Amino acid sequence: MTDDSQAGGAEENIPPELNTLRNSIDNLDAAVIHIMAERFKITQRVGELKAELGLPPSDPAREQVQIARLRTLAEDSHLDPEFAQKLLAFIVSEVVRHHTEIAEKK
Amino acid sequence: MTDDSQAGGAEENIPPELNTLRNSIDNLDAAVIHIMAERFKITQRVGELKAELGLPPSDPAREQVQIARLRTLAEDSHLDPEFAQKLLAFIVSEVVRHHTEIAEKK
Repeated sequence: MTDDSQAGGAEENIPPELNTLRNSIDNLDAAVIHIMAERFKITQRVGELKAELGLPPSDPAREQVQIARLRTLAEDSHLDPEFAQKLLAFIVSEVVRHHTEIAEKK
Repeated sequence: MTDDSQAGGAEENIPPELNTLRNSIDNLDAAVIHIMAERFKITQRVGELKAELGLPPSDPAREQVQIARLRTLAEDSHLDPEFAQKLLAFIVSEVVRHHTEIAEKK
């Protein structure tokens, strides 16, 4: 194990091109983690607001519009739209779980 | 439905603060989609490289280092480390599926 801060592991044993690619993956993953941290701060407030207003934690109509928009963005950026939709579903399911917990605490 | 490009849905019926929060969520989601598009371009090349070199599609040692690193990044940015780990597992499972397909085609 080297003492670098990236997640390359035992870098001396892997091909240089693979190591370079993995460093880029690690940078992009760090960006996603930080975006997700901001997104959860916002959805935390959404959950509180919905609980205050008596709105249900999940909103199927909003989710349908989100799915359609993200599939289009995925197609435009050459990402598999199915993956984009599954990723959103995964994130939303976590958020709804948080919202339900917030609502139950009130 | 309004003709705006965001995924807010019928914005006239929702509280202004909720609408503002949703617009921020939509912006962050667009950023994640574009990062994921770049990430898949890189993992596509990783898959090809691994197939060329006869390396297995999945790499448990690398994944353990990634998990530890992303959990630390999540803690530092006040994101639930469990969510970060589950998110990485979701993405990696999609990538390994792609790599397996690439290897089978060779």
